[in-house]
Amino acid sequence: MLIEDRLKELRDKINAKVPAGIVISQVEFEGPELVIYTDEPKKFADQEDLIKVLARDLRKRIVVRPTILEDPETAVTKINAVVPENAGISDIFFDPDTGEVLIEAEKPGVVIGKNGATLREITKNTCWTPKVVRTPPIESSTVKQVRQYLRSIKDDRKAFLRTIGRRIHRDVIAKDHWVRVTTLGCCREVGRAAFLLTTPESKILIDCGEKPGSATSTPYLYVPEISPLSSVDAVVLTHAHLDHCALVPLLFKYGYDGPVYSTPPTRDLAALLQLDYLDVVKKDAGRQPYTSNEVKEYLKHSITLNYGSVTDIAPDIKLTFHNAGHILGSAVAHFHVGDGLYNIAFTGDFNYQKTRLFSPAVSSFPRLEAVFMESTYGGSRDLQPPREEAENKLYEVVNRTIERGGKVVIPAFAVGRSQEVMLALEEGMRKEKIPKVKVYLDGMIKEATAIHTTYPEYLNSDLRNQIFRDGLNPFLAECFVQVDSSELREKVIGGDPCVIVTTSGMLSGGPVMEYLYALAPDERNTLIFVGYQADGTFGRRLQKGWREIPVGNRETMVVRLDIETVDGFSGHSDRKQLMNFVHHLQPRPEKIYTIHGDEGSTIDLASSIYKRYRIETRSPMNLETYRMV
Amino acid sequence: MLIEDRLKELRDKINAKVPAGIVISQVEFEGPELVIYTDEPKKFADQEDLIKVLARDLRKRIVVRPTILEDPETAVTKINAVVPENAGISDIFFDPDTGEVLIEAEKPGVVIGKNGATLREITKNTCWTPKVVRTPPIESSTVKQVRQYLRSIKDDRKAFLRTIGRRIHRDVIAKDHWVRVTTLGCCREVGRAAFLLTTPESKILIDCGEKPGSATSTPYLYVPEISPLSSVDAVVLTHAHLDHCALVPLLFKYGYDGPVYSTPPTRDLAALLQLDYLDVVKKDAGRQPYTSNEVKEYLKHSITLNYGSVTDIAPDIKLTFHNAGHILGSAVAHFHVGDGLYNIAFTGDFNYQKTRLFSPAVSSFPRLEAVFMESTYGGSRDLQPPREEAENKLYEVVNRTIERGGKVVIPAFAVGRSQEVMLALEEGMRKEKIPKVKVYLDGMIKEATAIHTTYPEYLNSDLRNQIFRDGLNPFLAECFVQVDSSELREKVIGGDPCVIVTTSGMLSGGPVMEYLYALAPDERNTLIFVGYQADGTFGRRLQKGWREIPVGNRETMVVRLDIETVDGFSGHSDRKQLMNFVHHLQPRPEKIYTIHGDEGSTIDLASSIYKRYRIETRSPMNLETYRMV
Repeated sequence: MLIEDRLKELRDKINAKVPAGIVISQVEFEGPELVIYTDEPKKFADQEDLIKVLARDLRKRIVVRPTILEDPETAVTKINAVVPENAGISDIFFDPDTGEVLIEAEKPGVVIGKNGATLREITKNTCWTPKVVRTPPIESSTVKQVRQYLRSIKDDRKAFLRTIGRRIHRDVIAKDHWVRVTTLGCCREVGRAAFLLTTPESKILIDCGEKPGSATSTPYLYVPEISPLSSVDAVVLTHAHLDHCALVPLLFKYGYDGPVYSTPPTRDLAALLQLDYLDVVKKDAGRQPYTSNEVKEYLKHSITLNYGSVTDIAPDIKLTFHNAGHILGSAVAHFHVGDGLYNIAFTGDFNYQKTRLFSPAVSSFPRLEAVFMESTYGGSRDLQPPREEAENKLYEVVNRTIERGGKVVIPAFAVGRSQEVMLALEEGMRKEKIPKVKVYLDGMIKEATAIHTTYPEYLNSDLRNQIFRDGLNPFLAECFVQVDSSELREKVIGGDPCVIVTTSGMLSGGPVMEYLYALAPDERNTLIFVGYQADGTFGRRLQKGWREIPVGNRETMVVRLDIETVDGFSGHSDRKQLMNFVHHLQPRPEKIYTIHGDEGSTIDLASSIYKRYRIETRSPMNLETYRMV
Repeated sequence: MLIEDRLKELRDKINAKVPAGIVISQVEFEGPELVIYTDEPKKFADQEDLIKVLARDLRKRIVVRPTILEDPETAVTKINAVVPENAGISDIFFDPDTGEVLIEAEKPGVVIGKNGATLREITKNTCWTPKVVRTPPIESSTVKQVRQYLRSIKDDRKAFLRTIGRRIHRDVIAKDHWVRVTTLGCCREVGRAAFLLTTPESKILIDCGEKPGSATSTPYLYVPEISPLSSVDAVVLTHAHLDHCALVPLLFKYGYDGPVYSTPPTRDLAALLQLDYLDVVKKDAGRQPYTSNEVKEYLKHSITLNYGSVTDIAPDIKLTFHNAGHILGSAVAHFHVGDGLYNIAFTGDFNYQKTRLFSPAVSSFPRLEAVFMESTYGGSRDLQPPREEAENKLYEVVNRTIERGGKVVIPAFAVGRSQEVMLALEEGMRKEKIPKVKVYLDGMIKEATAIHTTYPEYLNSDLRNQIFRDGLNPFLAECFVQVDSSELREKVIGGDPCVIVTTSGMLSGGPVMEYLYALAPDERNTLIFVGYQADGTFGRRLQKGWREIPVGNRETMVVRLDIETVDGFSGHSDRKQLMNFVHHLQPRPEKIYTIHGDEGSTIDLASSIYKRYRIETRSPMNLETYRMV
């Protein structure tokens, strides 16, 4: 059926359901949504369940937008008249092209009203569709810039969404039924995640990361399976770490022009980390694989989905993100293929234990036949101490160092690990387990933290309650001080005993190197590793016990400070949790593919899962294709 | 390096090796060969080992051709003057474009002379390069037509060979090293054989067959791995059965323009069977997937290789065919990838026991890491009686039928099975195990037999000795009578007790149906199945015991004749021979993939090989890709 005929058919069906008096002026696919334009959004908003009924009957995500919109200035007045003052509206943005108004408020619940009553009131009075977000307690320049950029290209973006909408809702013409997964990277190795899910009708690329520190650092994007890139229907991003997202912008350089699906925090964190990645490559005098223009292209093509939202991303594929517990916005991507044909989940990186920041990864799905599962700690000896034990060791080392008048340096990844360590330190001080010293944050950590506070709904309920119910936002604790100048850095180095949390996590550049140069010769200080140090990195050398390390064109670094490793802060499931995850998978899948781990770990995990649970397992190599059904 | 520079370099190296006085006028890649053009082919021919030395040092297949050629008429006189009369020259063909003269003779050895002395004499005297073939005892119209056609397009073909030669010898620029095999058909099923062997540099398609009697009868040629078809470097054909070769001409319809490698008998048998396939499809009112024009394209692009000839078919891949023992010209295709990187064999269909026609399949290779192995009889119960037992049962049934005044009808595939049965019957009569009745051959059997007699070097040594040493060509035995008119068919039906060997093998059309109509109501007659009857075929119904069978728009067939099945004439290895083959594989491979068998057989064989020999095995599905290295 031609797409125009299909839209006409949908319009007829909608007209049949809609009460007399509501005129539908247009029905249009925009991205994964079906948008109903009407002159009477007020009447539409009055029909409480109408959108739900339409969504269920048409099996589409429905959005209603007014054909004609209230003038923004008048609309502001009307919104302020309707919303109680204690909502604390801090800003209002209008997007005339989508007909949406974004309301930033201290208390979004108050703007929403009981069962959304206030929102419906706003729609009735202004015709704009309100979207409410919480005023972030720490302003993120990334989030601000992303939103501003997206508004600045609204015409392009609308055209893009309509194109994608029509592509998604094209007819399925293939008669064969099969589902395949091709491994383009990240098999029997950690890094360059990239998996291609294909059906006779569609092609979906899951992740597109770099392999840090490797000469062959890109996934196998040159093989015919993924050629031309314009034949790919969608890119799905599980989370924002560079080994999963670094090369997404590169796709746009080489002809991809489709959507990139992720959760909202992943979109913002990914842009932040991609731009930082370009900086780092430049500093290392490497060739940048793309420029900030391609990061903009990525943002222009991004479509965000919240956890649990079942979304058509191709004529025969529905995507649902579920919490993965690894970092902010990290997701298990669940694909429902065909009309009940097959269900397959890509875990991305996941953590199956509860952390200070996140709930454990979701292990229950409506249907599930196959799982592609990360195996970073898949080896039988890859056990991590419990979080409490790890924190106690951290406290103990901090106490010891501060007592002798030293400083603690904690190199950490800006996204995830840093925030976990921050929360542990904050609670340690609040509960008086460690002295109340300053915790200096250097590098991208503050900005990454700001993004965390922009998306509190992606944190676990304990932390959300602490923030909203108890009014105790640990990220805003007094102890945290951002270092944003070399003067302040000098002061910190020359100052009182303190803790410094800074990037990069493996000492491969970044401000941590400045601190280390200054603090390494003093044996009162301590360097605490809280994350994995890859072979060949500066961090690994220190961990191995090197005490005189040549550093490029600078003097040899003489290392006298204490070096400690505190395991247990990982964002990954350890071996026991991986097995536990499989144990609790609902429903029990037919096949499990172990990926994202070194050769030994993926094979060990695959074989252990088979032995214990009798589920068929494989430990794929890169460049293989597996038939699911 | 540019190809012109490479040719110049080769020419310099050749000049350095060639004695003074021999002038090299040109050096050119033509198909897989390096052709040296010289004005002094006589002098070249005098240097007995020169070509061998050059081939070894340059690691190329070397052919020497004269720049200027003797006038054909004069050349005929000179050839006749040099070759002893008892050679029995029956015809001489000149191909001015390749500089080759094809001499057909009763005794090729006499034309060749001791260690090729007479051939060198011919080259000296005429400048033409002689190729000698035996005058076939039964003239094959297929072989004649193929040769005539190839001569008629010699200019096109020379251009094609030069293009291919340059393509094969292009520089390898890829830096990655990997070898992959994608299954495009024939996995967990019998039929539509098609496997894609790829490296970063090259793509090779092995076989391209149909799946008889299936709605989805083609391999998965639409997947991106093989797109566009023009990106494929070479097609390699293991043997001429339709489930391996039927759709090779289709490739040319959809843009393939490269070579198709096979043994010489496979080329001719494939063309014969493809044309017959088109006829059958037409008679069944089906849509022909291609026409005889595409069969011609196939012939135009065919390059033949004999067993054991190691041949560059891509910049990083060498192909060697080895005897597979299945049908005339059937080959195990052995691929040597890269400079010692990997060795992989595709068995095609193979027989690991000696038959009347062929030697057992080769199981020893210079190097071998992986094998893709047929599993038609891979199930643990798929055992066949020994050949002698099968023949005795055949004799017994023939005797019983003839004694009671009946006629024996043996439906058989034209290629392979028919000739095996013919030889058994001929020996049975010669050794007086059965009465000397006429054996009528109907359908394509005579033509297929003629092709067998054109290529005696592809038969086993016993049969060759019988033919050449003892002068006893069993195919020429008096008992065999070709039926080539409906009058004669009527006479056979109304005549004396006899044996009728005729197509089709599964009673899915062909002359066998005429015989059956006439002979089925008479209980003195016998129908003997010597081959597998697939589900849904007319043959299978009879085998199951149906005695009244509706036949299209004709009267219901009433079946009173005796129905017997004689197992053991198969061209495939049975389960025991498959295991034996693995046992004797030299060297022992790392991986075995079981293909070309139903799901149960491939899985059973894979698991049994693993259990007995601890070789890693897989039973792939269609549309998978396996990484070899």
